[in-house]
Amino acid sequence: MDQIIKWHKEKVILLDQRKLPAKVKNLTCKTVEQLALAIESLAVRGAPLIGITGAYGLVLGIWNSSAKNIENDFDKAYKRIKRTRPTAVNLFWALEKMEAVFYDLLDRNMAVSQIKSKMLRAASEIHRQDAEVCRLIGINGAKLIKRPSNIITHCNTGVLATGGMGTALGIILTAYKKGTVKSVLIDETRPLLQGARLTAWELAKNKIPSALICDNMAASLMASGKIDCAIVGADRICANGDVANKIGTYGLAVNAYYHGIPFYVASPISTFDISLQSGKAIPIEQRGEGEVKAFGNCRIAPEKIKALNPAFDVTPAKLISAIITERGVLFPPFGASIKRLLR
Amino acid sequence: MDQIIKWHKEKVILLDQRKLPAKVKNLTCKTVEQLALAIESLAVRGAPLIGITGAYGLVLGIWNSSAKNIENDFDKAYKRIKRTRPTAVNLFWALEKMEAVFYDLLDRNMAVSQIKSKMLRAASEIHRQDAEVCRLIGINGAKLIKRPSNIITHCNTGVLATGGMGTALGIILTAYKKGTVKSVLIDETRPLLQGARLTAWELAKNKIPSALICDNMAASLMASGKIDCAIVGADRICANGDVANKIGTYGLAVNAYYHGIPFYVASPISTFDISLQSGKAIPIEQRGEGEVKAFGNCRIAPEKIKALNPAFDVTPAKLISAIITERGVLFPPFGASIKRLLR
Repeated sequence: MDQIIKWHKEKVILLDQRKLPAKVKNLTCKTVEQLALAIESLAVRGAPLIGITGAYGLVLGIWNSSAKNIENDFDKAYKRIKRTRPTAVNLFWALEKMEAVFYDLLDRNMAVSQIKSKMLRAASEIHRQDAEVCRLIGINGAKLIKRPSNIITHCNTGVLATGGMGTALGIILTAYKKGTVKSVLIDETRPLLQGARLTAWELAKNKIPSALICDNMAASLMASGKIDCAIVGADRICANGDVANKIGTYGLAVNAYYHGIPFYVASPISTFDISLQSGKAIPIEQRGEGEVKAFGNCRIAPEKIKALNPAFDVTPAKLISAIITERGVLFPPFGASIKRLLR
Repeated sequence: MDQIIKWHKEKVILLDQRKLPAKVKNLTCKTVEQLALAIESLAVRGAPLIGITGAYGLVLGIWNSSAKNIENDFDKAYKRIKRTRPTAVNLFWALEKMEAVFYDLLDRNMAVSQIKSKMLRAASEIHRQDAEVCRLIGINGAKLIKRPSNIITHCNTGVLATGGMGTALGIILTAYKKGTVKSVLIDETRPLLQGARLTAWELAKNKIPSALICDNMAASLMASGKIDCAIVGADRICANGDVANKIGTYGLAVNAYYHGIPFYVASPISTFDISLQSGKAIPIEQRGEGEVKAFGNCRIAPEKIKALNPAFDVTPAKLISAIITERGVLFPPFGASIKRLLR
């Protein structure tokens, strides 16, 4: 598998995830606008990867700046990238990290060429660190899978969503190598089918026994004892442990709870937003009707019908068995365990 | 809207539901085999409508028979149609009803031409009666919707699924006319999208305020108080009130239960199968992987990935608030109320 994102010859090169699995094609972003559109159109997605992309985007924004323009160019790039997607907090985390580096360099009266190279290094560092974070999440999470298990997952949380091996999918990979994964059930994850298109692609490449299902099949598989646990990623985690994640996560969590099946959330610490007390405060992105009314190029619904398309939902902490981070596994009550982790 | 099914010039003419909503096209069945394939491929679907189709299919099977062949032809048609789809019991109910008529006519030494015309009359009668059954289910069910409500439904249970105005959708139509439907949320109903393609089409035609959603969006809409009740159809109801219905019904019922939202099942009495004590005994049709891995001509998953495709699931009686039939509304405990209804 090629690199999912890289800085190459003054451009950001992304694997265009909209075309997977039919085509493996890159998308080259020469401008901040192109990069912002790539995020908005989900050519690049996955909370940690959006953060990394945003960081590289800021480098793109100042790469051709003069000393006179650089602050203004940075500010424009920052504002444009910030308004691409509202729910996943990793983007804002990465932008703020880059912002701190930028103003520190400015304050130190660094030469423009120096600022540029140091900003690129900072973005690469966010990218590199995420790979290490994924590796640790994998190790920490795999410890929870004690006996050979059938695991269900939702959306995509693997190499296509992060700077490394993935969060929830990283755990599955790590546990598989330890011999504790019997099979993976992949929620197709309507409307944009990140499970069917991306997770299925990753698991097939890794030769892990898997089966694709429609999202609405999970409940009956749980009832018939065919699912031992669920592991998903997260786009934002509040101070009380409420989790925003891809639409469908909440319904899956309710079903796991009803059937007494452990429900695990895996995410880097950059996903925590303790400025929000509970999930009620998380802004939920509402996307266009077209994604629901069509499948690729196939229209599936009458033109006249209205469609709703919330891209995320909120799973309350009480439905979550554990939250797996690079610094360890959190258990309920999450209010207290999150506080301990972040202090 | 044209007729969904009719006997016309020695053939059975069906609206080909596979092509909806893009195309409104008929499918003409001249032979039992063509009709059986139409059922198997879901050109015609919906538990009550499959029953009606099966009844007409038996007429097709004997229409060109001589006195010598008629019993053998009937038997062949019966066996072929019986093995089209295993879960919905209305098909077997209709076949058995027609079988009783057929052997009664044979026993009375009726002329072959008479047998044919009387068998056609019997099939038409099953068709006509289903329309009346739907009308009564609509009236009985609408009484449960006391205040203006947002109602969620799954799959298709309207004119495209029955011989009349529908079961669950018939209730929604009746309640809408009484002013107690604010809006309808339509589960798209993966994999074959009967909600997006068929229910959306019917509701748009009837100008009922509606919104299409992906199946996995229902839970968060319930959590935010945007759903007042759920109404679905049924393919088979056991003696204890367990209900087999389109895949996804069970997960929706679990979510309704968790959120304290009434969950109603609407179906004709021909859907009851009291020979089965519980839902565990209902045979669940497993359909091909292709329906999950593609939609129409759009492939959505890697070729190598395996997919599961159970076409139905079982909702246990304890998750059901009421079962609405043409002879009245049943409440828990269903074991007792079903016994009273059917005695």
